[in-house]
Amino acid sequence: MKNFRNTMRIGVIGGGKKIDDEIWNLAYQVGKLIAKEKAILVCGGLGGVMEAAAKGAKENGGITIGILPGNEIEDANPYIDFPVVTGIGYMRNLLVILNSNAVIAINGQYGTLTEIGYSLIYGKKIIGLKTWEINGIIRANTPEEAVKLALKSL
Amino acid sequence: MKNFRNTMRIGVIGGGKKIDDEIWNLAYQVGKLIAKEKAILVCGGLGGVMEAAAKGAKENGGITIGILPGNEIEDANPYIDFPVVTGIGYMRNLLVILNSNAVIAINGQYGTLTEIGYSLIYGKKIIGLKTWEINGIIRANTPEEAVKLALKSL
Amino acid sequence: MKNFRNTMRIGVIGGGKKIDDEIWNLAYQVGKLIAKEKAILVCGGLGGVMEAAAKGAKENGGITIGILPGNEIEDANPYIDFPVVTGIGYMRNLLVILNSNAVIAINGQYGTLTEIGYSLIYGKKIIGLKTWEINGIIRANTPEEAVKLALKSL
Amino acid sequence: MKNFRNTMRIGVIGGGKKIDDEIWNLAYQVGKLIAKEKAILVCGGLGGVMEAAAKGAKENGGITIGILPGNEIEDANPYIDFPVVTGIGYMRNLLVILNSNAVIAINGQYGTLTEIGYSLIYGKKIIGLKTWEINGIIRANTPEEAVKLALKSL
Repeated sequence: MKNFRNTMRIGVIGGGKKIDDEIWNLAYQVGKLIAKEKAILVCGGLGGVMEAAAKGAKENGGITIGILPGNEIEDANPYIDFPVVTGIGYMRNLLVILNSNAVIAINGQYGTLTEIGYSLIYGKKIIGLKTWEINGIIRANTPEEAVKLALKSL
Repeated sequence: MKNFRNTMRIGVIGGGKKIDDEIWNLAYQVGKLIAKEKAILVCGGLGGVMEAAAKGAKENGGITIGILPGNEIEDANPYIDFPVVTGIGYMRNLLVILNSNAVIAINGQYGTLTEIGYSLIYGKKIIGLKTWEINGIIRANTPEEAVKLALKSL
Repeated sequence: MKNFRNTMRIGVIGGGKKIDDEIWNLAYQVGKLIAKEKAILVCGGLGGVMEAAAKGAKENGGITIGILPGNEIEDANPYIDFPVVTGIGYMRNLLVILNSNAVIAINGQYGTLTEIGYSLIYGKKIIGLKTWEINGIIRANTPEEAVKLALKSL
Repeated sequence: MKNFRNTMRIGVIGGGKKIDDEIWNLAYQVGKLIAKEKAILVCGGLGGVMEAAAKGAKENGGITIGILPGNEIEDANPYIDFPVVTGIGYMRNLLVILNSNAVIAINGQYGTLTEIGYSLIYGKKIIGLKTWEINGIIRANTPEEAVKLALKSL
């Protein structure tokens, strides 16, 4: 197995609760395109947007890392290759950002808001798809555009 | 010295960088009123809004706790009675929230945005004075109103 | 109320579970002497050695800070003035050390072992009373000697 | 690429500073045997024992995860496939343990002592090779024995 040390990592953030079909499809497509681009998907490892994106990546040959809030590897959704438990609750939101070269926010609630804030504090490029309207987010209209923007100039 | 275990704690969040006079005065007044109400001021312990509010509290007989991002007690501003170092960087933003019964956001940038997100995730009452427009923040127009709203029904 | 910014802080570490009378008395005496010396007692905020030491401090006019592993202020023992919740589980053991100028270990199990390790990593003076035999710990035979050694040359 | 979700993970802990040839060889062999057993190597991602073990794993077809104390992926040694930055300093020692199904301690100083303590707090099986003498560590005399003991009954 090759060394993935220098492989690009794209973070995908968004709501962990039940999401509607449109958002699910956007997240799935984003995960799929990240895999097609041979980048690693990093996310919070749980449900909703995280699970849809991880499923998209895994069904298209990708690699996924899930950084979990709790202590239990079993909390990770079934599409996470490498669950990383942290036991620090929502403070792990910063770790999702720090472990990504660029971030794509899809929809999302308050947890996503903290991750957007952290992305902007740390100067990470952050792309938004139907998410919070915050200055500093680069808008994308489609999953294709989002992944393209994320990978651009990295 | 009495035990402060059950004393109300009000978190004050806002930008740590240079702030203009209007914001400085708002923060100072909020700190002063928190002290007058015999509540403890909790903040991130650094400059800007945190320092102005802590100064307002200390010059009016209050008690201040500063939860710092780094490892050095000396990083705390001069108006912090009890600096608590954490060494976890901006993840400490969550600790400011968890250690407050209610939170007042004054102005602020991306760090404040993460703290607003954390307040709303954890269901903490959050009052806003000239800060981000995020659903779930209770608006106040003056320091008096902000502190009154923060203490109400706690 | 005065500013406690430059007041010496002594950490007291040891088992949180049920402890026998001898250990309880040692911890109580250590807490009492810390208070008599006008230093602040820092501990993990829970039961056992932490509670005995905090009781000794509070019943003798001292101030106590408890840095808790969980999210609930109510987890703190009744002798903690300033509970600080962290939500990071046993990683908070490092925060007890980082927030102390010197540390006294009394008895203790594996949690205490991690705190001894952290004290030695960070070059904090650590005094031992009936605790682990680890190179780098300064032995004391009585609470008086322990507190004297802790305060010496700080 | 297959999903590594249920692959066994063995943590390797030990000193990060310069180590002598004997310890280096023990760590390299442990890493090699972990790879041969198709388990994932988890470590702290830095030098010394961590680097020797990761090198042993990578040169024998294994997969390595390095959980780093700082914010920089570049801090990881060259044999880490998946660096995970944390920015929490030595608190990350607990994360190395929580992300391992069993742990092998090789030599080591105070950081290793904290990791041994954490292993015992969390009931993780911990095997020792020329390391601290602490009750609860299972002794091994060779890398073969250590890896066999680590994998046994998992």
